[in-house]
Amino acid sequence: MKPSSSRSEALLRPLSGTPDVDAELDDRALLQALLDAEAALARAAADTGLLPVPVAEEIARHCRAERYDPAALGAAADAAGNPVVPLVRELTAAVDASARPWVHHGATSQDILDTALSLVAVRAGAVLLRQLDAAADAAADLARVHRDTLMVARTLGQQAAPTTFGLKAAGWLLGLDEARTRLARARAALPAQLGGAVGTLAGYGPAGPDLVDRFAAQLGLAASPLPWHTRRQPVLDLAAALGGLLAATGKIAIDVGLLAQTEIGEVTEGGEGRGGSSAMPHKRNPVDSVLVTAAARRGPGLVGTLFTAAVQEHERATGGWHAEWEPLGDLLHLAGGAAARTARMLAGLRVHPERMRANLDATGGLLLAEAVATRLAPALGRAAAHDLVRRAAARPPLRDALLAEPDVRAHLSEADLDAALDPAGWLGSAGHLVDRALDLHRDGSR
Amino acid sequence: MKPSSSRSEALLRPLSGTPDVDAELDDRALLQALLDAEAALARAAADTGLLPVPVAEEIARHCRAERYDPAALGAAADAAGNPVVPLVRELTAAVDASARPWVHHGATSQDILDTALSLVAVRAGAVLLRQLDAAADAAADLARVHRDTLMVARTLGQQAAPTTFGLKAAGWLLGLDEARTRLARARAALPAQLGGAVGTLAGYGPAGPDLVDRFAAQLGLAASPLPWHTRRQPVLDLAAALGGLLAATGKIAIDVGLLAQTEIGEVTEGGEGRGGSSAMPHKRNPVDSVLVTAAARRGPGLVGTLFTAAVQEHERATGGWHAEWEPLGDLLHLAGGAAARTARMLAGLRVHPERMRANLDATGGLLLAEAVATRLAPALGRAAAHDLVRRAAARPPLRDALLAEPDVRAHLSEADLDAALDPAGWLGSAGHLVDRALDLHRDGSR
Amino acid sequence: MKPSSSRSEALLRPLSGTPDVDAELDDRALLQALLDAEAALARAAADTGLLPVPVAEEIARHCRAERYDPAALGAAADAAGNPVVPLVRELTAAVDASARPWVHHGATSQDILDTALSLVAVRAGAVLLRQLDAAADAAADLARVHRDTLMVARTLGQQAAPTTFGLKAAGWLLGLDEARTRLARARAALPAQLGGAVGTLAGYGPAGPDLVDRFAAQLGLAASPLPWHTRRQPVLDLAAALGGLLAATGKIAIDVGLLAQTEIGEVTEGGEGRGGSSAMPHKRNPVDSVLVTAAARRGPGLVGTLFTAAVQEHERATGGWHAEWEPLGDLLHLAGGAAARTARMLAGLRVHPERMRANLDATGGLLLAEAVATRLAPALGRAAAHDLVRRAAARPPLRDALLAEPDVRAHLSEADLDAALDPAGWLGSAGHLVDRALDLHRDGSR
Amino acid sequence: MKPSSSRSEALLRPLSGTPDVDAELDDRALLQALLDAEAALARAAADTGLLPVPVAEEIARHCRAERYDPAALGAAADAAGNPVVPLVRELTAAVDASARPWVHHGATSQDILDTALSLVAVRAGAVLLRQLDAAADAAADLARVHRDTLMVARTLGQQAAPTTFGLKAAGWLLGLDEARTRLARARAALPAQLGGAVGTLAGYGPAGPDLVDRFAAQLGLAASPLPWHTRRQPVLDLAAALGGLLAATGKIAIDVGLLAQTEIGEVTEGGEGRGGSSAMPHKRNPVDSVLVTAAARRGPGLVGTLFTAAVQEHERATGGWHAEWEPLGDLLHLAGGAAARTARMLAGLRVHPERMRANLDATGGLLLAEAVATRLAPALGRAAAHDLVRRAAARPPLRDALLAEPDVRAHLSEADLDAALDPAGWLGSAGHLVDRALDLHRDGSR
Repeated sequence: MKPSSSRSEALLRPLSGTPDVDAELDDRALLQALLDAEAALARAAADTGLLPVPVAEEIARHCRAERYDPAALGAAADAAGNPVVPLVRELTAAVDASARPWVHHGATSQDILDTALSLVAVRAGAVLLRQLDAAADAAADLARVHRDTLMVARTLGQQAAPTTFGLKAAGWLLGLDEARTRLARARAALPAQLGGAVGTLAGYGPAGPDLVDRFAAQLGLAASPLPWHTRRQPVLDLAAALGGLLAATGKIAIDVGLLAQTEIGEVTEGGEGRGGSSAMPHKRNPVDSVLVTAAARRGPGLVGTLFTAAVQEHERATGGWHAEWEPLGDLLHLAGGAAARTARMLAGLRVHPERMRANLDATGGLLLAEAVATRLAPALGRAAAHDLVRRAAARPPLRDALLAEPDVRAHLSEADLDAALDPAGWLGSAGHLVDRALDLHRDGSR
Repeated sequence: MKPSSSRSEALLRPLSGTPDVDAELDDRALLQALLDAEAALARAAADTGLLPVPVAEEIARHCRAERYDPAALGAAADAAGNPVVPLVRELTAAVDASARPWVHHGATSQDILDTALSLVAVRAGAVLLRQLDAAADAAADLARVHRDTLMVARTLGQQAAPTTFGLKAAGWLLGLDEARTRLARARAALPAQLGGAVGTLAGYGPAGPDLVDRFAAQLGLAASPLPWHTRRQPVLDLAAALGGLLAATGKIAIDVGLLAQTEIGEVTEGGEGRGGSSAMPHKRNPVDSVLVTAAARRGPGLVGTLFTAAVQEHERATGGWHAEWEPLGDLLHLAGGAAARTARMLAGLRVHPERMRANLDATGGLLLAEAVATRLAPALGRAAAHDLVRRAAARPPLRDALLAEPDVRAHLSEADLDAALDPAGWLGSAGHLVDRALDLHRDGSR
Repeated sequence: MKPSSSRSEALLRPLSGTPDVDAELDDRALLQALLDAEAALARAAADTGLLPVPVAEEIARHCRAERYDPAALGAAADAAGNPVVPLVRELTAAVDASARPWVHHGATSQDILDTALSLVAVRAGAVLLRQLDAAADAAADLARVHRDTLMVARTLGQQAAPTTFGLKAAGWLLGLDEARTRLARARAALPAQLGGAVGTLAGYGPAGPDLVDRFAAQLGLAASPLPWHTRRQPVLDLAAALGGLLAATGKIAIDVGLLAQTEIGEVTEGGEGRGGSSAMPHKRNPVDSVLVTAAARRGPGLVGTLFTAAVQEHERATGGWHAEWEPLGDLLHLAGGAAARTARMLAGLRVHPERMRANLDATGGLLLAEAVATRLAPALGRAAAHDLVRRAAARPPLRDALLAEPDVRAHLSEADLDAALDPAGWLGSAGHLVDRALDLHRDGSR
Repeated sequence: MKPSSSRSEALLRPLSGTPDVDAELDDRALLQALLDAEAALARAAADTGLLPVPVAEEIARHCRAERYDPAALGAAADAAGNPVVPLVRELTAAVDASARPWVHHGATSQDILDTALSLVAVRAGAVLLRQLDAAADAAADLARVHRDTLMVARTLGQQAAPTTFGLKAAGWLLGLDEARTRLARARAALPAQLGGAVGTLAGYGPAGPDLVDRFAAQLGLAASPLPWHTRRQPVLDLAAALGGLLAATGKIAIDVGLLAQTEIGEVTEGGEGRGGSSAMPHKRNPVDSVLVTAAARRGPGLVGTLFTAAVQEHERATGGWHAEWEPLGDLLHLAGGAAARTARMLAGLRVHPERMRANLDATGGLLLAEAVATRLAPALGRAAAHDLVRRAAARPPLRDALLAEPDVRAHLSEADLDAALDPAGWLGSAGHLVDRALDLHRDGSR
């Protein structure tokens, strides 16, 4: 079986990912991470006295990705079932004869590949956290600037009551900050893997547990109390965090897409020359919103796959482990595209307060129905107040219809009614909630 | 549209769930949780001075599930899109006229239903945590008792090297404890929901934020800094924790199922009268293993559904929210069945050390190939040592074949070789790792 | 372990299902299907001479669901891993002593439960097909009535060009008819299951294959060439068909939800008293659209679960099979709710052509940009024509801006331009396509 | 945003795919398919008289993938949201000025990309069908050769009763043939896409429907009665067929993996130099089984994603469509790897009838318990016969224990008992079922 040729990497993949993250996921990056694991193993073993320091340095000297050919390794991997077997063979051939017995000392392929995938996720995760910060900062700016910008809130697709664009942006902000917290936590907990063939650390004698700690420390990874060859909680934590990131950015993206509808027109995506249509010269498509939405649709299937794959039998698994590699990379890739595009989308978002106001006023005060009903409820009872307002709403304009109701006249002055019908007076704690989200963002752990 | 009749509730559902958890998920429990939310709202509003204390007590007095008919509410829910609308109508009709304006004061249906689902999850979660404790304690007992029980470790389905049953059980234990930690964390963070129609707390004037805190405190739930009507991270945290629980128990279940295979025979599920076959009188099926495995297969799809549903638009969503209710209940239900069956399975597990030993010896020392190769590697080089052992392994019995190799004779005495071929000498840090897992379990947060 | 109590069956389940389908999925229906399988087995065995006809009739006489208690069977099922084992025990106890040896003759539990699930799906499927017919007929009516009703087509959320509501409804219609075709095909192919303990038909001697055919014929099910205990293609075909149904109805539901947005207002869901809001007296929520959308979000996870469960090992599987039962029922349940609500939603849909026209005109001819560009392309080149129109579109009103362009004046008369700017003139084959969809619907297999 | 760099394409992707299929999925193949669609559009338009034939030939002349740079197109795609927009720009620039107005005439990006993805799937599907044929032929050879090779059937992981390896292979064969049938059907139905900007064929005047048919015919694709921009049943049909292929091959792979367990040893994967372990020199891992199992675990998530993405709103969708591209390619890729590895695995499978026999005999006749019970049932009643055999099975050896039972002695001679305990006498219709599967395979549509 020859090596598989490339998939539609250059044409389609840029639309779901972002270069900064993808650079941490490519062949060279994974290969370097595999070699970093081998080098760290040698050095940690030397630290514990299992092998001579010069041997470790000789091994580490050859742990540079540019010396190996990913395509040849990938082709050879088919016979072994993973790419570590041929890599170890090549690394062993490359080092001085004296160092050969010590290459990959006491390790199994999964030790190296799991560790490398942790490293890749940590490195890609650093970029993701920066992108989330940028997105959150942009959301915070929108929340601050538009703290009191009136707009209509929509529930079940219907105009419901007044809110502010600031509160909407504050919700986005909190979602991004929550996603950040979870990703940072899952990333910091990603462990190195070292157990040897069956997780007993058999090749290391009593030095095993100490070696595991030194190995992890060399790489800046967490040390797992036991090998996790078939206990995949760290992978699930990462998957859930990335899935949460895709949900949080996806929520923003569909909001932007809906607000950008021609008939709503409350926001427009920025960016010169973006969003043109091949067929319709007048159109400006909300491209970032669309692509982040697409990424969000793909997240759950990949999260589900990683939860499916996590049920791994015995000491090392028959397929469950192998099923993780590409979905994990795909989730990181999609998270990168979603976070970067959300940051760009929010930073460039053009907000149209006048359209927000026009939409808010379009129903002639109907949105304040709850406000009016609430003012009437103490006197009339909640149900009766609701019924009265529903009746009046059927005979627009609302203000006139209300004034024609004796029960209204009996309990509210015209000024009271006008106050009730002013959207700015029916915002509850919107401003306070915006401030709270901004405070939380400012006090965040960054 | 008449109310839907019941699905195959009594016949099939007991096989995927457990009564203790299911009792927290049924109609009565959900109805009481909805009413608890309404009562807490009234009392918290009274605390903030929004309504008179006697009114709150009058409302709370009618918040008892046995007074309402779930089937009638469910039927009426079809017109409203959720069951809160008819429940509020009935509650309002039930209370004294003076209290009617204050029923459901300032709240939206989602406030009550989200809060109720948090309550249900907290209550079911308490049972789940106890079940996980029982399962983990049983795993700890197995790890302790069998700390040094030799058995063969299997990788990719093949016998690989010696390990102990204690280490296998320690891995199960750690998996269960990790699942417990995550579930406890997600459960403790489940927030009350209170935002009013569009999340601004418009009905409460300046008292809103204080009311939210009191409302949550009344119910023993967390208070969310902002309403989370369309920011579903709390649901995702719970879903991921439950999915992790299903993966951790599923891993144990497939291990038990594989170890119980007729040809392996290293463990048997306990339980008199369980596991009989309708066609084969001699058979004893590992029923708990089978049913926990089945639950684990269903988890990922439900987790994926909740991540799909989490992308919710605007202030309250068109379908995303409604798609959460039943999958969330199903995940809690499956987690209950999986945790309870795992606890029972582990507590009753019959372990057969003699079969473990027989399987370990079945290949005549081949499993110690790595041990021998490791001993030879310093002298011969790792690759050459591996090659030599691979050659010898093809001419069993291994001990004789090795002694026939000059390179072995040159570097190992017969005593050295016998030591290398003793499985108890090739356990690495297995015992230490078992102790570590037991220590972690003992020091856990319970 | 006591039987699990009910989940939130009465309160929530009516919102995702429909009574007609759910009646085919409940305990009584499943129990009757199990008993129908036992009765058919006895009769088919009598037909082949394996047992006396009076014995078969004695067994069949006791195969009535009302004689057995689902809750007791479900409770007893926990020990066996499926409900067939206790049911066979009770059925055996119920019949005359002479018939006892022949109850469940030569069958395994999975034979009966798989056959029963096929029966349940066939019966529920009959209701689903009727509901799909009703929905498709309603879509056909909309397509016919509104064949030439102008509206704006939207792509990526943006107004794009003119279309007709008839063409939109024709697309819905075709989607429903495609879903119907697939469901009818999968349903007709659902096989009876009969293989005996391990799929060899060992209990029947040479009569086995003939018995399988007679058994299937008794029940109106297809006969499988081989037992399908661990070859689950029939389940996958059904799952894919139901998933397709949920996607087709979900597409209609989100279209309706978007068209019903306050700012769009082109359709309203019918139904007196439906869609009220607990907080906002003026609101009319598109409840059916919301609930069908919710069902559509849940389909893919269940479809994925059934594909996950389909990988079943050996002769009968360890968990994969057990994982199918409830998801299959849930998919049928959701399909019922979605199909029934779609039928109701389409039959009652209020269409507002005047709002459609107003939205179409709102951008002052911009939607005809492609029409104008197409007219100019032969003369100017496609790219230049696009650029010209894009420039003009930036200086509304478009007609004036275009007339100010020398290249327009050079190639189009004012009448040409007005023709180009008339939406009714830029409908292409819309009417023809509507007619085609209606023809296909009329010529369908019903 | 710069173009994304490559993911771990060379190192990991060969382990999940196969070169023959992947060659149809790579950038060059997709690019050529996009250009094939543009060329076919031009030629079909010329056929209908919409543009001059020499213009169509000029356009087609430039529709060669090697003239364009996928990386540059992918980079430019980010601004447009899809790669067709920049490709059309480049193609337009490449052709003679006279042809420029006619490039991409009347089409929208989705017309070209959907059509190209259909082409890619048709081309990759041709390879897949050949691989499935090879796998099915290998399964048929195993079924034929081992038609009467005795082995033990296993249910719920336990030895259950005798069967033949031929019947097991016949089940694999039927599964592969079913997968083939479904893939062939879905592939033959894959339609070209042509609707113009909003699905009305507005750019073509009355020629539209004829043009659609000619366009499809040019490309050897089906013609859809209506544009399917947001009606994605063809994608779902393909997804379900590929998911079914992964399930059918996954079932074979887990069977092989379980049969290859050291303690079972009934089959070994062939292939020199494959399956070596980096840590254990003696091990031979069932690598193809492992990798096919891994592919099968990934299928359901991707199938679920495509069903999720299929709910697409309005005339062209906001993200749903974009979410399909890569998952569809991944499913084809995984199907290729699974089919090719299954073919190789089955063609090279080493079967060990002596181990099968030894395992069959290991329980001393217990597997014939049902056979004995069936012989006793007419005399004793089914339940009593089962109980008797169960009691005897608890006092091995079974034959002696049975002979010690008066009820056995009363109804069976020793010769009867020995016949009942001969596994070859308890195979039912196994041979007949094998023949039937082979006949069906031979009569298949190839």
